[in-house]
Amino acid sequence: MSFCYSLCIDSFADILVVGIGKAEMVKGEWIKKGAVVIDCGINHIPGLIVSEAFLLESLRSLLLSAKRFLEGHQPGKWNISCTKLNLQKPVPSDIVISRSCVPKPIDRLAREVGLLSDEVELYGKTKAKVQLSIVKRLQAQPDGKYVVVTGITPTPLGEGKSTTTIGLVQALGAHMNLNVFACVRQPSQGPTFGIKGGAAGGGYSQVIPMEEFNLHLTGDIHAITAANNLVAAAIDARMFHESTQSDKALYNRLVPLSGGQRKFSPIQINRLRKLGIEKTDPSTLTEEEITRFARLDIDPSSVTWQRVLDTNDRFLRKITIGQSPTEKGYTREAQFDITVASEIMAVLALTSSLEDMRQRMAKMVVATSRSGQPITTEDLGVSGALTVLMKDAIKPNLMQTLEGTPVFVHAGPFANIAHGNSSILADKIALKLVGPEGFVVTEAGFGADIGMEKFFNIKCRYSGLRPHVVVLVATVRALKMHGGGPTVSSVEFSSNLELLEKGCSNMRKQIENAQHFGVPVVVAVNGFKTDTEAELDLVCSMAKAAGAYDAVRCSHWAEGGAGAVALGQAVQRASGAPSNFKFLYDLELPIADKIRIIAQKIYGADDIELLPEAQHKVELYTKQGFGNLPICMAKTHLSLSHEADKKGVPTGFVLPIRDIRASVGAGFLFPLVGTMPTIPGLPTRPCFYDIDLDPETEQVNGLF
Amino acid sequence: MSFCYSLCIDSFADILVVGIGKAEMVKGEWIKKGAVVIDCGINHIPGLIVSEAFLLESLRSLLLSAKRFLEGHQPGKWNISCTKLNLQKPVPSDIVISRSCVPKPIDRLAREVGLLSDEVELYGKTKAKVQLSIVKRLQAQPDGKYVVVTGITPTPLGEGKSTTTIGLVQALGAHMNLNVFACVRQPSQGPTFGIKGGAAGGGYSQVIPMEEFNLHLTGDIHAITAANNLVAAAIDARMFHESTQSDKALYNRLVPLSGGQRKFSPIQINRLRKLGIEKTDPSTLTEEEITRFARLDIDPSSVTWQRVLDTNDRFLRKITIGQSPTEKGYTREAQFDITVASEIMAVLALTSSLEDMRQRMAKMVVATSRSGQPITTEDLGVSGALTVLMKDAIKPNLMQTLEGTPVFVHAGPFANIAHGNSSILADKIALKLVGPEGFVVTEAGFGADIGMEKFFNIKCRYSGLRPHVVVLVATVRALKMHGGGPTVSSVEFSSNLELLEKGCSNMRKQIENAQHFGVPVVVAVNGFKTDTEAELDLVCSMAKAAGAYDAVRCSHWAEGGAGAVALGQAVQRASGAPSNFKFLYDLELPIADKIRIIAQKIYGADDIELLPEAQHKVELYTKQGFGNLPICMAKTHLSLSHEADKKGVPTGFVLPIRDIRASVGAGFLFPLVGTMPTIPGLPTRPCFYDIDLDPETEQVNGLF
Repeated sequence: MSFCYSLCIDSFADILVVGIGKAEMVKGEWIKKGAVVIDCGINHIPGLIVSEAFLLESLRSLLLSAKRFLEGHQPGKWNISCTKLNLQKPVPSDIVISRSCVPKPIDRLAREVGLLSDEVELYGKTKAKVQLSIVKRLQAQPDGKYVVVTGITPTPLGEGKSTTTIGLVQALGAHMNLNVFACVRQPSQGPTFGIKGGAAGGGYSQVIPMEEFNLHLTGDIHAITAANNLVAAAIDARMFHESTQSDKALYNRLVPLSGGQRKFSPIQINRLRKLGIEKTDPSTLTEEEITRFARLDIDPSSVTWQRVLDTNDRFLRKITIGQSPTEKGYTREAQFDITVASEIMAVLALTSSLEDMRQRMAKMVVATSRSGQPITTEDLGVSGALTVLMKDAIKPNLMQTLEGTPVFVHAGPFANIAHGNSSILADKIALKLVGPEGFVVTEAGFGADIGMEKFFNIKCRYSGLRPHVVVLVATVRALKMHGGGPTVSSVEFSSNLELLEKGCSNMRKQIENAQHFGVPVVVAVNGFKTDTEAELDLVCSMAKAAGAYDAVRCSHWAEGGAGAVALGQAVQRASGAPSNFKFLYDLELPIADKIRIIAQKIYGADDIELLPEAQHKVELYTKQGFGNLPICMAKTHLSLSHEADKKGVPTGFVLPIRDIRASVGAGFLFPLVGTMPTIPGLPTRPCFYDIDLDPETEQVNGLF
Repeated sequence: MSFCYSLCIDSFADILVVGIGKAEMVKGEWIKKGAVVIDCGINHIPGLIVSEAFLLESLRSLLLSAKRFLEGHQPGKWNISCTKLNLQKPVPSDIVISRSCVPKPIDRLAREVGLLSDEVELYGKTKAKVQLSIVKRLQAQPDGKYVVVTGITPTPLGEGKSTTTIGLVQALGAHMNLNVFACVRQPSQGPTFGIKGGAAGGGYSQVIPMEEFNLHLTGDIHAITAANNLVAAAIDARMFHESTQSDKALYNRLVPLSGGQRKFSPIQINRLRKLGIEKTDPSTLTEEEITRFARLDIDPSSVTWQRVLDTNDRFLRKITIGQSPTEKGYTREAQFDITVASEIMAVLALTSSLEDMRQRMAKMVVATSRSGQPITTEDLGVSGALTVLMKDAIKPNLMQTLEGTPVFVHAGPFANIAHGNSSILADKIALKLVGPEGFVVTEAGFGADIGMEKFFNIKCRYSGLRPHVVVLVATVRALKMHGGGPTVSSVEFSSNLELLEKGCSNMRKQIENAQHFGVPVVVAVNGFKTDTEAELDLVCSMAKAAGAYDAVRCSHWAEGGAGAVALGQAVQRASGAPSNFKFLYDLELPIADKIRIIAQKIYGADDIELLPEAQHKVELYTKQGFGNLPICMAKTHLSLSHEADKKGVPTGFVLPIRDIRASVGAGFLFPLVGTMPTIPGLPTRPCFYDIDLDPETEQVNGLF
């Protein structure tokens, strides 16, 4: 007699069951019962039969082994196999380092951090998505420590905030033997092929494989492009059909006869309810109700929903659409934004569950009707399709650092024109997985005035999470630029303590900005080989003088996690320090007051000026009931003020608010400060000139 | 003493090696040596230790089992576990049927069809990509039989070509026990959310899970959108920068000083070679050479490269771009096409390897310079980046039918405005995997005048493959419409032999079209419940009278593969019949002659008329050396003629050729017949009204 048999093991379960039978069926049942299942994978081999003796011996042996394994296993404490770095000097290029490390199979890393195999969807060998069912499984677990990485006001030199985030988790995980997750944002392909290049960190502190990280990843941003543009197409098509059809004809098409019957779709019933029409039989609507239902009556000049592409296509900044004769002259001015600035990206980042995402997808306001009513994606009938398009994107993506520690990559960048933080879901899942002694390090985009302010006032407000530590990244050369260093090369290569001391004002202001929220600040001084000892010391001492809990130098770019152990230790100490978290403003305040508080307290402005369009929107949104939303400023990241060339700590300025948009689904108001291009352009020589694929080895060259 | 051990098995290898050691390392080495590796997966369990006695017993036992397995395994003959259908009457909706079948884990199906685990990249549990390394491994294997499915001229009623393709493979695989692969195209999201709905087949003949098939799949179309639009952004940005900079300034930016040195990138050296400048040191170029190198001098009115979106956005059919003040007045008229019409989609479908794709990505012509030179993607410096963006898309996607047989989903639809066939690579890999007694059934889009003509004259020309059988799908109700039936409902529900006989002219013409290529034709009469016996008999007898090898009725929509066994048997017989394959035209003929041959022989036109723009392009492309390319007609699919409302077999018409485009990278010329919208629009009530996600069960509702 012979059997097929199946056994498999996952951590985090209470009892152990072994058995004989058809693997796929049995396994599912065991897992439902919360069993530990030992899977030898033999069931995957068609036709493979094993002897009964072998089977019984295997079972006995595996049972013993599994018991021993479970005894040695402390829930909450990982046993991660870290990858040892082979440090080279001088430090090779990012892609050379990335390629020199063989990533662990991602399913192995998933098991190491306590994910069950049924919670993981592999995307090739180095990326995986984590199913949201884990949120429920771990809901009773205590959270780990929550650390947010931010920076001084960025300069074109690059301060290494992503690199520091990765270096810090490599230190905490691979060198201090703590459970730790990095939560970072998926880069936009626009800058990857434009000016900036990749965003996977750098040197010996990277997410790998960096080409997977920087290219399509698992398609989340593409899903947002598809969803966003379906809304845009729906808006213009609807305006077109309304302008060419009578109410009756519209209604007959919207609620068509099918098999002799008319029926409302559930989404249409939602719209009826919103209009106060409590009917479900299409034949019973009055003429007036038919008109109200069928005609959204969008004011074309009120459309705030833009099309998007994840490409640096400057010629789409302002366009005229509808010029084909088939559109019968219904042209209008429109624009494309970069995909990561889509409200759908913000929804992805701020949502807490599939159910919550479905609700947000319904609430997005795309325009105003001629009678002043907000028109939503639900009114357009497209909200369900959006949720369907985003059903995989909502699952965080698991990758790894060069040293083999786990990373979630989820949601998007561009903290200047978006809120620019990684997702709440990734942070929440990571906080459960690391356990109470572990750390989650999440990155907020650009300087503390932009990404961090939004992290606290928007993201933490929606997540309910309270961070333990702020890490603020500074570099000597960037601070010198803030001190007034005129050009990049002169700043970079000469020691100048006076200039540096002057520039430290920017760091001092950003420390102060973090302190507004009552969280201890650790300054990470990211070292470059041109820095002198005296310069590094000066920055550290000025940071402490400004009230930082600690300030430490780090060299993780050249040394990986080993170069950030001092930072890791400072962060660990700071996480035990008293913290007194508070928001910067109250949601109940009038819109203008909330904007003014951010402008004055964070940017150092004297006041704000609401230009006419902004003033109009304040009135409109207050009337429409959106006045209680938090504020997501669209402001240049290159200065504390609205003028990119004002370095250091600008004073004596009034912040001009040109316009305000409402992202009602994401849940914030979006004031536009000055003129901000919402889609970047390509330079004369974009990054793509250097990027190529070796068809022999299939290696990607030229990404950095 | 204790060990970690690892054993794993794959089919198709010559020797068996077992061993002890760190699994991941050892496994790779074994596989390189061509070993059969038995993998119990225990190495994936962190910290699991097994006893030496267990290990040795396991090895002994597994060795025995593996030997027995290999003895029982005939290479080339699969042992697939088919899924038994539980047929319901009346037939439920597509999504209900799709959901009622639990798909096999895709890694299991991959093993069943002889794929090695290292050749498969999982994308979740139901989709996988197959690496191109398999092409080399199987190159010495003989091919299977090659079947192409086409149809009569389509009507809005739907003829069920995809459904027949899937029904046929379910019959051949699950009922006739033959090795068989279906090769189908990835649907565009435009129609999925617009009018048409999904494209995974229907009834009991479907690719599952249909929601995965119809949504993002593995992101191939999104990758094309990204790649295509990077080219578009590069064109306009380059024209902009050239118009605002001197030659010297351009050159200094294109070949910048870095560390005191200027260096050409490899892509720039390719452009220099094309210009006949055999230099590699940027400092040695003469002023004249600098001008020629740096200035592409694109004539803005000559740009043929369009932006794309996979959305039915009619308002993008004709637009004006560049209207933001940042673009300094360099506006121009442009348009968006649907993504599947991108030349990059055609490259994906027609390429034979990564190396070949890299070359095609360099050859794509996007515009003409003011001096009449073709400007390519290589000239723009973007060709390497495009290849990088498409490096995963080139791998075919493995899915399965309702009955558990394998399907490759690869490349795109829209055979009217594109070439609309699935990929050569998928077909080639499938032909090797099924072996000499097996079948590959591939689908050509729309009617035989469109998709099949392009399949033969373009796809088979590039692949070198010669099909054994053409399956031509016809339905009683569509043929009645071709007979002049005025409206859908009257055609659908009344028996009318006279109308039907008249409409069979279209089928006769399409059979004749297939016979031009010397391949036997089997007509599949896809039955509907409104068809009468007499009607079905009439179609079959008229098909045979028209020269079809055979004509059979099928009922796979209601019965799955069981309903297409007669078709499968006819196809099997026909595949042994004599075949005398020939192309319709010689590549060396003048462009106009090739177009005329297609128009006269396939469409039944009296002649063609080259309108002025087309005449100009004939001269331009002949001069530029593109005259020898095959022809890919852009013509309505709804009539044999260029007028969509002319049903049956129109005669006495002259085919107007409005313009011609050159897809030099894909390798064809693209005449535009009359006016064809290249991006569809949304109707008043798009499909998306019914589509939603159930947040509890995570099920997609409303897709059909």
